[in-house]
Amino acid sequence: MPRAPRPLNPAERLDWLRLIRSENVGPVTFYQLLARYGSAAAALEALPELARRAGRKRPLALCARDAAEREMAAVAKAGARLVAWGEPDYPALLAAVDDAPPLLSLCGDAALLRRPAMAMVGARNASANGRRFARDMALQLGARGLTVVSGLARGIDAAAHQGALPTGTVAVLAGGIDIVYPEENRELHALVAERGALLAEMPVGTEPQARHFPRRNRIISGASLGVLVVEAALRSGSLITARFALDQGREVFAVPGSPLDPRCRGTNDLIRHGAVLTETADDVIAEIEAQLVPATSPPPPPEPEPALPSGSSELAGAMARVLEHLSPAPVPVDALIRECGLPAALVNAVLLDLELAGRLERQPGQRVALAG
Amino acid sequence: MPRAPRPLNPAERLDWLRLIRSENVGPVTFYQLLARYGSAAAALEALPELARRAGRKRPLALCARDAAEREMAAVAKAGARLVAWGEPDYPALLAAVDDAPPLLSLCGDAALLRRPAMAMVGARNASANGRRFARDMALQLGARGLTVVSGLARGIDAAAHQGALPTGTVAVLAGGIDIVYPEENRELHALVAERGALLAEMPVGTEPQARHFPRRNRIISGASLGVLVVEAALRSGSLITARFALDQGREVFAVPGSPLDPRCRGTNDLIRHGAVLTETADDVIAEIEAQLVPATSPPPPPEPEPALPSGSSELAGAMARVLEHLSPAPVPVDALIRECGLPAALVNAVLLDLELAGRLERQPGQRVALAG
Repeated sequence: MPRAPRPLNPAERLDWLRLIRSENVGPVTFYQLLARYGSAAAALEALPELARRAGRKRPLALCARDAAEREMAAVAKAGARLVAWGEPDYPALLAAVDDAPPLLSLCGDAALLRRPAMAMVGARNASANGRRFARDMALQLGARGLTVVSGLARGIDAAAHQGALPTGTVAVLAGGIDIVYPEENRELHALVAERGALLAEMPVGTEPQARHFPRRNRIISGASLGVLVVEAALRSGSLITARFALDQGREVFAVPGSPLDPRCRGTNDLIRHGAVLTETADDVIAEIEAQLVPATSPPPPPEPEPALPSGSSELAGAMARVLEHLSPAPVPVDALIRECGLPAALVNAVLLDLELAGRLERQPGQRVALAG
Repeated sequence: MPRAPRPLNPAERLDWLRLIRSENVGPVTFYQLLARYGSAAAALEALPELARRAGRKRPLALCARDAAEREMAAVAKAGARLVAWGEPDYPALLAAVDDAPPLLSLCGDAALLRRPAMAMVGARNASANGRRFARDMALQLGARGLTVVSGLARGIDAAAHQGALPTGTVAVLAGGIDIVYPEENRELHALVAERGALLAEMPVGTEPQARHFPRRNRIISGASLGVLVVEAALRSGSLITARFALDQGREVFAVPGSPLDPRCRGTNDLIRHGAVLTETADDVIAEIEAQLVPATSPPPPPEPEPALPSGSSELAGAMARVLEHLSPAPVPVDALIRECGLPAALVNAVLLDLELAGRLERQPGQRVALAG
């Protein structure tokens, strides 16, 4: 992942926006293109030919300059701004995640993103006790100097934001930064925007759809030292966030509950599998104490990848091999590389071509699948 | 610990009863005396002189033959009988505990003691949900062929017995086998005596006192493959049972609960420290499956200890050293042996003398303290 050594200038920011909004360009591909071509502008120029050689029939739909300018204006109109990966206001912990959003809409107090953060998530149909617990816990974590990050959903999320409003809370939205969801949280949305901060990866104006929620969850966990799950049923979205947290090397915390309450089966199961049993803020602090120094700069950039000519015969052979091992069921990229028996750089180059050609779907947690 | 290779004959049983009811003779001393003198009768004969040489001023009060005979008659009148360590009806797992009662009053179905058993204990002021959970869990464990062992207390204990009445349950009483405690469990006491089994270490007619409960708890855990704690406050009696279970090498299971309920703080803490998080009977069965073969015979006898002459000069020197390391605060015998830097057999001989002289108190979990 390349590092932005300084704030982007307006032209660069527009190019970044155009590149990430172009067809078939997700975060992983974005960073690979940036590394290969040196700038978003150069990548935009190379994209059409790259996609054609990767086997794409229709031309790749680039994001037009005026569309990007309109989005910029809409972001500003919504009272927000775009923060780029590696800029000072971009959450430092999130920057270390492999598929971190190249650009985030940000509204509110950016200083909250520079403090150490704890995520709190949980059931939408939470019990009254669960919501009370979440509110108190958020209050106490806030008092210890932690920013409380959540997803502004009903139930536990909303309670966590409410508890941390006085000390600082960040809501990560599944849709655009100006879209209130769910409707019942309209007032809270406004309060968090005013006294805390909102973050969104999707373009302004985007209504949240089911597929946006897992992507949102990876940002919640990625921006935080750990994720505390308060009430969660088995096979619930909160457990997906916990799974991302583990993939991202974050600590997972869970609040125990009665086996008679289905809303506790998920958290109990997390504890059974190693999550920190959490009853008080002290339980959280004890685990993350060592990391409670203010985050400063993003991680150092990795070595640039060796450039591989798209459409070369080496790539063509590798692509056949990679396709054999891909299916509509997602597999981790690591496992794919092992199974193919090819150099990682070569497999990554193939995956980039496949994504540009619209034949690959990237999923959070470094998993890939054939596009349906 | 010596092994009783066959059922005791009536005279031996009476001698065992006299020896364990004699002043200052607890289970550990009982087995040491039996090992040293070969029989309870010979130990009874040697006791007065032994106690005198150990530094006792008043003569040691032996249990008189007619007192023992009266107790025997009272046991029979209560519809019970005395079972000796190592006899077929003595719980085989309990027999492997170092301070297992040499004699137990038993009333009811002895066959239940030969099946694998699980203990269930918990708060007396249990919640309605906790009691419901305990009843259902006991029913399910019973359906899997496990005898459910508990203490016939209010709350969780009573619910566990109720749930396991149809399949088989054993109540271990803190007082005598004929003493109903608490009064509100009178009907349950009668039901367990009729359809399950009652066990008691204390003489028939003994009203339970505070110091009897920890002793009772060591029998509950000792007779079982594991102990499931359902609702327990911090620093509660149920946690003492869990502690015994660990000392005895038993598995500890705990039911999680809300941090907002003080009755769950103890169980949550057990889970935090390694107890098996338990939501269903499957969680229990999965852990103990390998041991679910019917218990058959008691463990093999340990090597007999080398006889050490009481009152010898070697013993006198050792006694001074041991006394330096003893205080009214209980210490584990193992630690005492290490601290004294003396052979274990010598320290054990000193402890036996001290106990007979009334200067030592033995506590469950192989701990000893100076008598107050």
